[in-house]
Amino acid sequence: MKILLSNDDGYFAPGLLALKAGLSESAEVLTVAPNRDRSGASNSLTLTMPLRLSEHGEQIYSVDGTPTDCVHLALTGIYDNPPDLVIAGINAGPNLGDDVIYSGTVAAATEGRNLGLPALAVSCCGTRGDMYYESAVEAVRQILGKLSSLKIGANTILNINVPNLPWSEIKGFKVTRLGKRHHAEPVIRAQDPRGRDIYWVGPVGEQLDAGEGTDFHAIDKGFVSITPLHIDLTQYQAMASTEHWLQEL
Amino acid sequence: MKILLSNDDGYFAPGLLALKAGLSESAEVLTVAPNRDRSGASNSLTLTMPLRLSEHGEQIYSVDGTPTDCVHLALTGIYDNPPDLVIAGINAGPNLGDDVIYSGTVAAATEGRNLGLPALAVSCCGTRGDMYYESAVEAVRQILGKLSSLKIGANTILNINVPNLPWSEIKGFKVTRLGKRHHAEPVIRAQDPRGRDIYWVGPVGEQLDAGEGTDFHAIDKGFVSITPLHIDLTQYQAMASTEHWLQEL
Amino acid sequence: MKILLSNDDGYFAPGLLALKAGLSESAEVLTVAPNRDRSGASNSLTLTMPLRLSEHGEQIYSVDGTPTDCVHLALTGIYDNPPDLVIAGINAGPNLGDDVIYSGTVAAATEGRNLGLPALAVSCCGTRGDMYYESAVEAVRQILGKLSSLKIGANTILNINVPNLPWSEIKGFKVTRLGKRHHAEPVIRAQDPRGRDIYWVGPVGEQLDAGEGTDFHAIDKGFVSITPLHIDLTQYQAMASTEHWLQEL
Amino acid sequence: MKILLSNDDGYFAPGLLALKAGLSESAEVLTVAPNRDRSGASNSLTLTMPLRLSEHGEQIYSVDGTPTDCVHLALTGIYDNPPDLVIAGINAGPNLGDDVIYSGTVAAATEGRNLGLPALAVSCCGTRGDMYYESAVEAVRQILGKLSSLKIGANTILNINVPNLPWSEIKGFKVTRLGKRHHAEPVIRAQDPRGRDIYWVGPVGEQLDAGEGTDFHAIDKGFVSITPLHIDLTQYQAMASTEHWLQEL
Repeated sequence: MKILLSNDDGYFAPGLLALKAGLSESAEVLTVAPNRDRSGASNSLTLTMPLRLSEHGEQIYSVDGTPTDCVHLALTGIYDNPPDLVIAGINAGPNLGDDVIYSGTVAAATEGRNLGLPALAVSCCGTRGDMYYESAVEAVRQILGKLSSLKIGANTILNINVPNLPWSEIKGFKVTRLGKRHHAEPVIRAQDPRGRDIYWVGPVGEQLDAGEGTDFHAIDKGFVSITPLHIDLTQYQAMASTEHWLQEL
Repeated sequence: MKILLSNDDGYFAPGLLALKAGLSESAEVLTVAPNRDRSGASNSLTLTMPLRLSEHGEQIYSVDGTPTDCVHLALTGIYDNPPDLVIAGINAGPNLGDDVIYSGTVAAATEGRNLGLPALAVSCCGTRGDMYYESAVEAVRQILGKLSSLKIGANTILNINVPNLPWSEIKGFKVTRLGKRHHAEPVIRAQDPRGRDIYWVGPVGEQLDAGEGTDFHAIDKGFVSITPLHIDLTQYQAMASTEHWLQEL
Repeated sequence: MKILLSNDDGYFAPGLLALKAGLSESAEVLTVAPNRDRSGASNSLTLTMPLRLSEHGEQIYSVDGTPTDCVHLALTGIYDNPPDLVIAGINAGPNLGDDVIYSGTVAAATEGRNLGLPALAVSCCGTRGDMYYESAVEAVRQILGKLSSLKIGANTILNINVPNLPWSEIKGFKVTRLGKRHHAEPVIRAQDPRGRDIYWVGPVGEQLDAGEGTDFHAIDKGFVSITPLHIDLTQYQAMASTEHWLQEL
Repeated sequence: MKILLSNDDGYFAPGLLALKAGLSESAEVLTVAPNRDRSGASNSLTLTMPLRLSEHGEQIYSVDGTPTDCVHLALTGIYDNPPDLVIAGINAGPNLGDDVIYSGTVAAATEGRNLGLPALAVSCCGTRGDMYYESAVEAVRQILGKLSSLKIGANTILNINVPNLPWSEIKGFKVTRLGKRHHAEPVIRAQDPRGRDIYWVGPVGEQLDAGEGTDFHAIDKGFVSITPLHIDLTQYQAMASTEHWLQEL
């Protein structure tokens, strides 16, 4: 099995290295990841500047670009024959709820899917400090063992979040929908040391929909959360009502 | 009516200025847009650095950040009471098909919706050179006149693309789904003047699904295309099959 | 007289616009300046990425690069025949003492000199708020009237600082040396809203050598300060002692 | 002996690692270097954004900033008691002639001197591919052995360039002045894949002053070149003539 591995934390990130080590026994892994932390990069793609590739040991490359750039460059510029799968992660921190829209990890998987490949985004739901990356590696291993039998269509990726617990304490897997948060807290206004106003994007909002069935809930209860995400943004359900409204225009 | 106006081409972009002029007769418009071209920024949000706001005349601000940053800062840091609507545009060029995932214009509208407001992304489907921004302004004007009666739900934005034609040659409006393209062309390998390899992201792929009902088709036939896009990435249709598959894990 | 005008505050900066207006009566002015604030850029030159030029009205261009990039691109890529002079400014704030080493304004002038042209860096010594740019324009006008008779050699630029006063209150011109400051204040350690350590470069140090003859002193006393700066960094005076020391190596 | 080590190629650069290894036997080395290649950064100092420090093993930090930022942060924010010396390098490529004004390596040493410490910039004059970093390490070792007896004043740093040869083939040391080049070649105009004009800074000019006594000449003849550089930009020799000229103003 040939796997393209990327992330948004940088090619040197412990989560990526743990996953690479865990996969290398059974798969041929090529790592192409940003040369620095690009968390929050979403699906940003670099069109106005060229990209550069740096080699860091065998089958490990960094790119001075976004996660999407990395996957795009790897799949259209490095591989002669496409790999079997794209995995983004293991992210240092959760990618849950409506925040996934900003995620560079999810975006890397999305780019893989856009270019025709099955793709997983994998995150370890800890905060800084001790991270049980090995649990996320084990979750990926089990999912890969069964992946060939999964039929989710060409527009879908799997967003996998793993509780930050030892594997023995993880309760199992749950298929989930994205939870929702209240609106973000306001930007934080401050002053730089030269007396000029600056604004920091503030914390995410409190959980609004975190009930049974959501990814928030699964993680909270100690389950690996698997959320199918689509890459086709069309809101098909709204088409009829919009059509109806349009007639009056 | 109070409108927040943003874009991804920069606060000085002719498309934004045309829309601002067109709306200012009937609405109170606040412009908060990037201080430079940020096309392709997607939903990128700046978490690790502070943002700065610069004033450029009355009710016009630029931000050293992404389109998402601009809308986020405006809605959570400038307005005391939220506006009625967020509009992103008029973009210089189309935002059609699966490429919308990279769009900063669509992302600015998405951030408005994330923060609780109706939101439109508006693009003029020309290439460089003469752009019929006035046609896009007219399309927005007509849509705004009816917007209060549109029921599309809290997870949906409208992605509006306008043919680059005089208004008199535009055939009307069509509700569409996103078309699809073949995979992107490979990255273009070149060398910089110092002999080092560089890679440019290549052109988009040929149209794959551009038939009746798609945004590609509407534009091609001279109609304004209105595509409802959802901001909840959950692929609900795939949940059952994933659930089924999971049982075997 | 043909003049290339640049700065480090951006092509839209009031100081640049004031100088452009003041010079345009008697000279043919081409403006090529950064597309955003690049203060502190020093002589930074962009070698790994291409530059882009945007036009903003007649004879006004911005570059997505540093002040040095702007002057380099203008002199080697825009002009068919070189201009007579490069002027950088009017900077919003002083460029005095040992801080000039960080200055993008001084660097823009340096690049002009590197490429064979006489060059001036001009700064208005106010802080934010009301700036008497007209005084700096008048100072430049008087200097330009006599420039042809100045013999300062091919390695030298003039660094001109103008007190932030009405012209009628300015006492005259003084040739000065750069003053010196005590070491900079320490970096300021803070935390971002996510609890991570950040460090701001702190304020400049107190004045250490600000006596008679320095640029600090001239400004303080209400004179326009003119400091000849060399662009050849060789410390000729230290060559003999280094030579002597070397013999023991 | 306590040494602060920095560079402009990034904390992972082979030249820096070679020098760190070579010095660690006899000195306590703290590495604080950019988190990515910042060649050409000159004395650029980051004033409008905060800096972040990342740890990469014991006594090795990276900064998301310029070489000058790194040295500034290390000396004013990390050390309780200042080190004895700042060394920047070993740069991958020469820093010779008038190009040193753009060099981030030389700038890192300059910032050390600005903050009160003796400082060396060290470069290996190879191009890509095989680099004899060990020769540069040996040169530094010999210079450090004698450094305490060097009297060059508080405004001077040493710019050391080492031929890319095995140590046994290096002829010795020479104190040099900076050579000079003809003006740079013009920018190279090209088009990106989307048909838009781009401009690359072109190659440096041919050598103009590369005779006996210059750094160019020393390297060419197989000698280690030691050039004292001053950090006070005042052109004292031009002060009298400027004074004279001023009287006529």
